Amino acid sequence: MGTLREMLANDRFAANAGVELLEVQPGYAKARMLVTQNHLNAGGVCQGGALFTLADLAFAAVANSHHKLTLSLNACISFLRPAREGYIYAEAFETFNHPRAPFIEVRITDEEQSLIAVLTSSGYRKSEELAIDSLE
Amino acid sequence: MGTLREMLANDRFAANAGVELLEVQPGYAKARMLVTQNHLNAGGVCQGGALFTLADLAFAAVANSHHKLTLSLNACISFLRPAREGYIYAEAFETFNHPRAPFIEVRITDEEQSLIAVLTSSGYRKSEELAIDSLE
Amino acid sequence: MGTLREMLANDRFAANAGVELLEVQPGYAKARMLVTQNHLNAGGVCQGGALFTLADLAFAAVANSHHKLTLSLNACISFLRPAREGYIYAEAFETFNHPRAPFIEVRITDEEQSLIAVLTSSGYRKSEELAIDSLE
Amino acid sequence: MGTLREMLANDRFAANAGVELLEVQPGYAKARMLVTQNHLNAGGVCQGGALFTLADLAFAAVANSHHKLTLSLNACISFLRPAREGYIYAEAFETFNHPRAPFIEVRITDEEQSLIAVLTSSGYRKSEELAIDSLE
Repeated sequence: MGTLREMLANDRFAANAGVELLEVQPGYAKARMLVTQNHLNAGGVCQGGALFTLADLAFAAVANSHHKLTLSLNACISFLRPAREGYIYAEAFETFNHPRAPFIEVRITDEEQSLIAVLTSSGYRKSEELAIDSLE
Repeated sequence: MGTLREMLANDRFAANAGVELLEVQPGYAKARMLVTQNHLNAGGVCQGGALFTLADLAFAAVANSHHKLTLSLNACISFLRPAREGYIYAEAFETFNHPRAPFIEVRITDEEQSLIAVLTSSGYRKSEELAIDSLE
Repeated sequence: MGTLREMLANDRFAANAGVELLEVQPGYAKARMLVTQNHLNAGGVCQGGALFTLADLAFAAVANSHHKLTLSLNACISFLRPAREGYIYAEAFETFNHPRAPFIEVRITDEEQSLIAVLTSSGYRKSEELAIDSLE
Repeated sequence: MGTLREMLANDRFAANAGVELLEVQPGYAKARMLVTQNHLNAGGVCQGGALFTLADLAFAAVANSHHKLTLSLNACISFLRPAREGYIYAEAFETFNHPRAPFIEVRITDEEQSLIAVLTSSGYRKSEELAIDSLE
């Protein structure tokens, strides 16, 4: 078997975008991404999909932190400030740990702790055990 | 000046993900993306951020199709079916063309016309004219 | 036993708000509400909660139209135009009929078919059979 | 002129549902509602529209707490636990105070501080001054 961290390292799209998982505990996870020229949209700011990719990895870490396979059913993301080049961080909190339908909140901030985006998501937790023996 | 299509070709993150704008008219846009191994998450299906990136470009095309700079304030995406390798398509409809606060719906489908995801988004339209002289 | 219509007549909050179920079929439902002085907010237009109440009954009708108890996990509502006094209508479509996690879209319009609001919702469908023997 | 509290007392739908504004400050508001038999849906728990009505008044209080007319463009509400008879509370936080597009979060809890629902909303703030001279 292995760790949740190792399993999530197989998220190729997140890895290609430069997303790194910093920490995962039951009910909490933190990830970061270095925004570069390659993350920008036509307006010269970080593309919404790049922000979502970062948030999605943090979601996956926290949602699966109870060793049960959990998918995202939907996500509402609000874009507050543009993100420019440099590190941004996503902190994910499992606000409601429910056996079938957990609720997760993710907050994206920049190096100055300014809030960039907020995402809320309803998960769908399966009864299937994840093939991991620890988180980190 | 130039076209909206040329302007959106500067979306580096979408271009790197393989998103192609197929069509843009006032109030309607269509884009596609070839899902490859590079788009997959740890579960072996297309990452939510990759789907969002495709939808975001289609959003940007339709939201800016009236030659006014328009940003996304928020987006709600619902994930219905996993997307696997192959082409997927995003069609964006400006359901409500408002001078300040338009509302846009995006539907993502696969080659078999199965619905993969639905995204709704509130835009914020500025009074600033885009530096384009046509859409395509 | 009885009908889904009879069961939903026990929604006291919707009934008090004047919501009437007009039609329910598998995967489709329509309801209406007469907006009166009693539905207005401080700005003199129909309160968001009144619109939501109408949409929620239409959601409940369509979500339960397969005779399985189905709850709403979340809902995203976008307010496009203010609703004033007179009838407004909610049409609910089960866009994705999934045994556990269906997806439903509701469109609220006025007498002139102008779109007032759009709601999307992820449901959570239980395995429990509803104690009904027909829809209408 | 008058107070924001007096202005919001004209929200007839919220008043009829028993919503009371407890507190309003710049960037923060709190309201409560007594859930009775009249607020229940067909499943015997508080109807989603009743929860939304409570949240909407708290939203209106905080969104207008800077003396500028502010509307809700959209709202995403996640239902975590059923609310039963008794008082429930909505606390609204203006997470992002932007001159045109503020972002507000509302948390609904019961008497035991259990989280019932979470709502996030993008507002649209007009340049129009409210005809009030204070909040309370």
